[in-house]
Amino acid sequence: MTTDGSSPHPLDDAVALQRLTDDDVRARTTTAWSNMVGPFGGITSAVVVKALTEHPALLGDPLALTVNFAGPIADGEFDIALRPTRTNRSTQHWSVQITQNDAVVTTGSAVTGLRRDSWGSDEAPMPTAPTAEDLPQAAFPAGVNWVNNYDMRWIQGAVPEPTTGESDDSTTTMWVRDHPPRPLDHVSLASMADTFFPRIFLRQGDWVIAGTVTLSTYFIATTEQIAAQATDHVLATARTHRFHQGYHDQTAQLWGRDGTLLATSSQLVYFKR
Amino acid sequence: MTTDGSSPHPLDDAVALQRLTDDDVRARTTTAWSNMVGPFGGITSAVVVKALTEHPALLGDPLALTVNFAGPIADGEFDIALRPTRTNRSTQHWSVQITQNDAVVTTGSAVTGLRRDSWGSDEAPMPTAPTAEDLPQAAFPAGVNWVNNYDMRWIQGAVPEPTTGESDDSTTTMWVRDHPPRPLDHVSLASMADTFFPRIFLRQGDWVIAGTVTLSTYFIATTEQIAAQATDHVLATARTHRFHQGYHDQTAQLWGRDGTLLATSSQLVYFKR
Repeated sequence: MTTDGSSPHPLDDAVALQRLTDDDVRARTTTAWSNMVGPFGGITSAVVVKALTEHPALLGDPLALTVNFAGPIADGEFDIALRPTRTNRSTQHWSVQITQNDAVVTTGSAVTGLRRDSWGSDEAPMPTAPTAEDLPQAAFPAGVNWVNNYDMRWIQGAVPEPTTGESDDSTTTMWVRDHPPRPLDHVSLASMADTFFPRIFLRQGDWVIAGTVTLSTYFIATTEQIAAQATDHVLATARTHRFHQGYHDQTAQLWGRDGTLLATSSQLVYFKR
Repeated sequence: MTTDGSSPHPLDDAVALQRLTDDDVRARTTTAWSNMVGPFGGITSAVVVKALTEHPALLGDPLALTVNFAGPIADGEFDIALRPTRTNRSTQHWSVQITQNDAVVTTGSAVTGLRRDSWGSDEAPMPTAPTAEDLPQAAFPAGVNWVNNYDMRWIQGAVPEPTTGESDDSTTTMWVRDHPPRPLDHVSLASMADTFFPRIFLRQGDWVIAGTVTLSTYFIATTEQIAAQATDHVLATARTHRFHQGYHDQTAQLWGRDGTLLATSSQLVYFKR
């Protein structure tokens, strides 16, 4: 409950932290973010960013985050240990470890830092797309809760339905925003960078056992540029280069509707097919 | 020196390890791999892979590696601590830390694992290119040693010369192999994935202060497919999506000449301009 008695946003609820020490916080899973096994990977990424931004020794804002999904997080509490491993003048390096019942379930690392004015270039243009308002909100079959926390609108590569069939292109491009709407910040952007269903679904035209092994997200935009998106849709695109012996890569980019590249991410996914 | 009295290959020399404990090995910098400040990042990635592949508890072969360049490695010895944080049935997660004189200089994580037969697809085609033999070997100005360990042949986006000028495209595509030639393995591939000069050089047409902050490499090919490349050239391509406030992303793919996608990588780079 928030101070005015209303329920918190599902994202804020899922990243609520209880501080144990400077370096350790406790969080818990929420049913709203459950995936096929354990919670949605994006919310794990988001709760680490939340913990980073609340760490008393934080320098700057998030530049890069890598999370490795070592084992499924069971329903209930889990502990996040964030340790600043090296603090430089303008960058700070962090080790990340999530444990649950004394088992390591997630490892990772992060880099935070100060930004400064420099030459810049928005080299990669945002893909052309119909406006979000002109596209229907995607519907998903029941059973996976986390998708209900997003308003997704397919531009290319919709999640397969029983009649869809195979595809020779792993690309999904979509408009995505939190549902209900919530002003964009590093926390929600970290989660959004993982909202692409596994690319193997698209190629196979079918739901397949699959999960992220490791996920790296780079925050290219400033805090102000992220905040400027407010509750607007973000244009997100992802693709795979190769599927081989149970693993595939995925690279993704997320733009603000104003054409600002907010974040890029890459992940390695395992699949069984 | 090797057992027959010949000098070892510069790459093997740079990744030679002295075992301290199961989890700890000692290595040292070599002048052949020096960069503008400290050693070339690729060789740091490679020495971690070497340490992984020699760890007595290793399961499978490298799937993913993230290294964060926390501070420059000074000339001399450094210690690599590799700790298996979680071992599953088919995957194993590792924490990586390099220290020198009690300071953390590099952090990271790795995933190793067993592969199994699955459906597969080489979705992204190798860029079309003239054969390596039809292109001249790239020349670099003196001062940065590591480039001399590679035979690079530009297809697109050569390293800028004083008269080159700015470019509106950050893409470099090249043939690259170890110089002198050395059979490809995970160790050399890890280093090769970082052989792109900083993309900011290309856009600015100038050498600029720049360095990798974090680098993630995914090994998509099997050990056999990597070994099958032998000493042949690899086709490598990299680009940036956005340069902003002192940082830019880079995504890269590396193919065997036979069209096999061997690895993908992404990195975040800082620059001053």
